[in-house]
Amino acid sequence: MTSAFGDRIMARADALAEFSEYNDKLCRRYLTPEHRAAITVLSEWMESAGMEVHIDAAANCIGRYEAAEPDAPAVLVGSHIDTVRDAGRYDGMLGILCAIECVDALHATNTRLDHAIEVVAFGDEEGVRFKATLLGSSAIAGTFDPDWLQREDEDGITLQAALDAFELDSTDINDARRAAEDVAAFVEVHIEQGPVLENEGLALGVVTAIAGASRFNITVTGEAGHAGTVPMGLRHDALAAGAEMVLEIERLCTELDTVGTVGQIAASPGAVNVINGQCQFSLDIRAGNNAVRQRTVADLWARLQTIAGRRGVKVSIALTHDFDACECDAGLMAQLTEALERGGHPLKQLPSGAGHDAMAMAALTPVAMLFVRCERGISHHPDEHMTAEDAEAATAVLLDFLQHYQPSQA
Amino acid sequence: MTSAFGDRIMARADALAEFSEYNDKLCRRYLTPEHRAAITVLSEWMESAGMEVHIDAAANCIGRYEAAEPDAPAVLVGSHIDTVRDAGRYDGMLGILCAIECVDALHATNTRLDHAIEVVAFGDEEGVRFKATLLGSSAIAGTFDPDWLQREDEDGITLQAALDAFELDSTDINDARRAAEDVAAFVEVHIEQGPVLENEGLALGVVTAIAGASRFNITVTGEAGHAGTVPMGLRHDALAAGAEMVLEIERLCTELDTVGTVGQIAASPGAVNVINGQCQFSLDIRAGNNAVRQRTVADLWARLQTIAGRRGVKVSIALTHDFDACECDAGLMAQLTEALERGGHPLKQLPSGAGHDAMAMAALTPVAMLFVRCERGISHHPDEHMTAEDAEAATAVLLDFLQHYQPSQA
Repeated sequence: MTSAFGDRIMARADALAEFSEYNDKLCRRYLTPEHRAAITVLSEWMESAGMEVHIDAAANCIGRYEAAEPDAPAVLVGSHIDTVRDAGRYDGMLGILCAIECVDALHATNTRLDHAIEVVAFGDEEGVRFKATLLGSSAIAGTFDPDWLQREDEDGITLQAALDAFELDSTDINDARRAAEDVAAFVEVHIEQGPVLENEGLALGVVTAIAGASRFNITVTGEAGHAGTVPMGLRHDALAAGAEMVLEIERLCTELDTVGTVGQIAASPGAVNVINGQCQFSLDIRAGNNAVRQRTVADLWARLQTIAGRRGVKVSIALTHDFDACECDAGLMAQLTEALERGGHPLKQLPSGAGHDAMAMAALTPVAMLFVRCERGISHHPDEHMTAEDAEAATAVLLDFLQHYQPSQA
Repeated sequence: MTSAFGDRIMARADALAEFSEYNDKLCRRYLTPEHRAAITVLSEWMESAGMEVHIDAAANCIGRYEAAEPDAPAVLVGSHIDTVRDAGRYDGMLGILCAIECVDALHATNTRLDHAIEVVAFGDEEGVRFKATLLGSSAIAGTFDPDWLQREDEDGITLQAALDAFELDSTDINDARRAAEDVAAFVEVHIEQGPVLENEGLALGVVTAIAGASRFNITVTGEAGHAGTVPMGLRHDALAAGAEMVLEIERLCTELDTVGTVGQIAASPGAVNVINGQCQFSLDIRAGNNAVRQRTVADLWARLQTIAGRRGVKVSIALTHDFDACECDAGLMAQLTEALERGGHPLKQLPSGAGHDAMAMAALTPVAMLFVRCERGISHHPDEHMTAEDAEAATAVLLDFLQHYQPSQA
């Protein structure tokens, strides 16, 4: 085995970044000519690593490296090949490129394992083109909703038409679905897209769960008034009440070790010289553990009502979005942790606050994820950066994991 | 003297409210046909109260009730006849109508005082039409800026053209200016436009000063980030910092007995799932005392910087507007207070947070104001309301003040 994984991964990430819909920034949406060009190159890399490659009915690019015995269940490893607009070059691609390196290393020594390995480049995870995310992994997991075929992109092209134009038959989309007995597990390497590993000086961490999220619109109704004539003690200022709630959200989420974010805020009437009668804001609460998230929401709701009562304003809260956490498989997490240990890495577990293909794959098979440090936590931005050393480390751990992999006991 | 001031004031306020540019709401802007119609009726009321009436070069309607000796200096009493859009019927008009009742009462008993009384209906205070306020009182005080003649209304009509169309000669605008030796004082009765008197169960209060105001745009710059991936402890959330500042403004203004209002707020990027990297908000600080306002601003600036430092964000503050308080004349305040006492009213002093004609008149002569309770502090709104009893009380106090008036000692 060579130790040149890292450099080649970085070079290949650069090469893939050339396949963009724009000259001056990276954007590679699902089923575009750039998607085709990227998987054409990927296929060559997979083939030269000893894999047999096919494009499935959902335009996922899959390279299979057979086990010692033919038709053995496969461990799927990989991530997505699509990007957001003005993207970084590692989000998604890193997981595919690490996986190819692992197979290449096995192939170089002609090593066959008890399980097959399939490297998957999911066609769509970001959902930029058809406003529905995780299309590729949902198709494989069998949770693809046929209604999605009628979703249109910004040019009015349906997903169905786009699949057909990609020389796939959209009526065959269900053929992408994999049988549970053929798939042993799904393992995804991904940049953290957050600052935790960097902040602790660590290259790698094992993901415990992909956080669940609850989103709310909160409306505070107070009493508008003249900024000059209403003394502070007689005010029912909706924005001041909202500000106290924003701080309470921050305080409680810190206490409970969850994350809570007020991303949007508006106050009305919104004039320089008028006390605001209404304040609306969004709230996004995430936690790796569903019980923690639910407790946070319940505690917060009680505290916001207390603030409103004390200030003589009203507060109403509307749930706009709610999904549970996706827990990673304990057996796979343990095996990944052992691989980290054997590699001499400090042990670190952390939840993922962002969504990933593993969420969709969990409907089919046990999943696990390995997070890789990225610079300043920046992602979905051209400044997204990571090091060849960390790519090397991630690949070595993934390879070691695959070599030691044992199916979980039911 | 009759005691029917209040009922007639209420009836006349209703009658004036009929002179509106709209059928369904009250709006009477400067130099409109409705302005002309209103002062035509006012002139009749003034004349039947024994006054000699003229319209000055700035379209102020002035009724003079001579003193025992001719050509004695005049105490000017009154307020403005123009309104905002969708206005109430007492803001401005009350001060004119109370003054007419006072003169009518003197005239009914053929009483002449040592000073003349002039009732003034200023043509423009609100500034709705030409986006410059206090045009009428500025012309009388001699602070009218000739550049204002070129200001256009929403139909492109200049103030100059509007004066000419009103059958005034705009080149004569300076003729409206009064000589300081002919004017002894200006006293204005006005609804409070705030909730203080109502809250304390009082009909009347003596104004100490018309508050000065400082306005700022404040910008907080933190670090944008993913709502799911950045733990609370690693955030530099510009909106959370802004929220803490909003609460600090509220706390400090309460402590220092000033008023501070955040009327506008915006956070960016402003997406549900993104930590805000920037937050901008307006701040309006008012105080009757300039030193208090300046201390508030200085203290606040220090506290906002402390908050920013602790949170690892930057704050910048831009002054957008700054004017000093207009202090009411101590001698006139004392005489108004004595009139309140003689009328059996509890003594109450309060600053005015809103601007009034008295601000402009202070450039010419000592000024004082008597505030009258209004329902729930509502003004600039059709729900603006007050009682006949309070109008009665205000008129009785104003009349008593005028009867006992002594020029201030220099």
